[in-house]
Amino acid sequence: MPRYRLTIEYDGTPFTGWQSQAGGTSVQDVLERAVAIINGGHSMVYGAGRTDAGVHALAQVAHVDLVKSWDPFKLRNALNGNMREHPVSVLEAEEVPDDFHARFSATRRYYLYRILNRRAPPALDRGKVWWLPVDLDSDAMHEAAGHLVGKHDFTTFRAAQCQANSPVKTLDHFEVARYGELIEVRADARSFLHNQVRSMVGSLRLVGEGKWSPRDMKKALDAADRSACGPVAPPDGLYLLRVGYSSAEK
Amino acid sequence: MPRYRLTIEYDGTPFTGWQSQAGGTSVQDVLERAVAIINGGHSMVYGAGRTDAGVHALAQVAHVDLVKSWDPFKLRNALNGNMREHPVSVLEAEEVPDDFHARFSATRRYYLYRILNRRAPPALDRGKVWWLPVDLDSDAMHEAAGHLVGKHDFTTFRAAQCQANSPVKTLDHFEVARYGELIEVRADARSFLHNQVRSMVGSLRLVGEGKWSPRDMKKALDAADRSACGPVAPPDGLYLLRVGYSSAEK
Repeated sequence: MPRYRLTIEYDGTPFTGWQSQAGGTSVQDVLERAVAIINGGHSMVYGAGRTDAGVHALAQVAHVDLVKSWDPFKLRNALNGNMREHPVSVLEAEEVPDDFHARFSATRRYYLYRILNRRAPPALDRGKVWWLPVDLDSDAMHEAAGHLVGKHDFTTFRAAQCQANSPVKTLDHFEVARYGELIEVRADARSFLHNQVRSMVGSLRLVGEGKWSPRDMKKALDAADRSACGPVAPPDGLYLLRVGYSSAEK
Repeated sequence: MPRYRLTIEYDGTPFTGWQSQAGGTSVQDVLERAVAIINGGHSMVYGAGRTDAGVHALAQVAHVDLVKSWDPFKLRNALNGNMREHPVSVLEAEEVPDDFHARFSATRRYYLYRILNRRAPPALDRGKVWWLPVDLDSDAMHEAAGHLVGKHDFTTFRAAQCQANSPVKTLDHFEVARYGELIEVRADARSFLHNQVRSMVGSLRLVGEGKWSPRDMKKALDAADRSACGPVAPPDGLYLLRVGYSSAEK
């Protein structure tokens, strides 16, 4: 059975998250239904990053095994044709070797978190940004972010329901930059703990508001204690930007 | 009665357009309801540009007369607090002289039209772009756009229901630029005919697809005949960018 790699954009707002679960529609459900129509039966779609409810993706990666061989262009168009009611779009399809696994072959995940920092609430970007009306010091946030870069025990920034074997992860980049009213936080690592990005961004907010100094971020990390974390940021502003597969990916 | 100028952002998707009309909710309705709550009674909200159903605004301008005087910050926040269910946001409020009229004092309207030019349909920008999957020649579109700049009879690009006294308008800028998968069309003029921007963009599409040469755009203009216009572009991609009020506004 030929295996295909899919690159997928989605608006996470109406979904229960990437992964299928009881009580709602997931992005995976929408893709698997579209696949079933063209494949004449169910085939599981495996994603690289299991984004939570309300989290978006600009280029999630998944793989799926199909009964017959497809021209990649036709496969992409057929899947998109079967998902018209949903804000999910296959940007690219590509045939890959059987040993390619969207999740286990991935060597890097890149995330973007967007904060709208102005007094007026968002109208055009509702559900696509975290609206914070209080003036944030993005330079202090950037300095604080620097304390988390590297190999650390990230227990402070780990959700209670996280299933990772170890809280030790290497965060390769974690940067904050302001573009007018928009503050962009970028993070990349081989892998993240559950809710890690939103937990870190929620703590950065406290630094931006002046409630924490940048050094307090290091103290929170060193505490290795969930109760030292700031309130977790909402999913609205989070985007899975892309997934890296080369061993050289940095 | 003090007069206030409001700068307003909105997502046009759920609205029948700017102006109140039977059979649906308009942006004006939402604003007038929010005003009535704080003003203790109805007061008409006058907008600079009467955008159609589905057309968005980054900075529409309107004015309204209120019974009592308001701190502009508090006015903005109070209005936004009364519009939480709707994708409408007052960015700024300012007290202005009685002779300021959002529509009649305006000396320039700036529009942006966004085309998503890629094979995959939009997921994150649904309703916010015109999706055209066929490769468009944006250089040819830009050349064609140049033929419309200046003072002309724009009958070809005027909707049947247009109420302007004359079809003669001066188009000051009309430019096309590509940014990756996104093509941005920018237009500004003292005023536009009804559906003029969408009619011009609909014709530009034919140039982009190679069905018209750039010179065909001039021929369509010279025909001064509605039937010479390309199919009108959908509202999804259109944004009222801003409104100018200085006599020096260019």
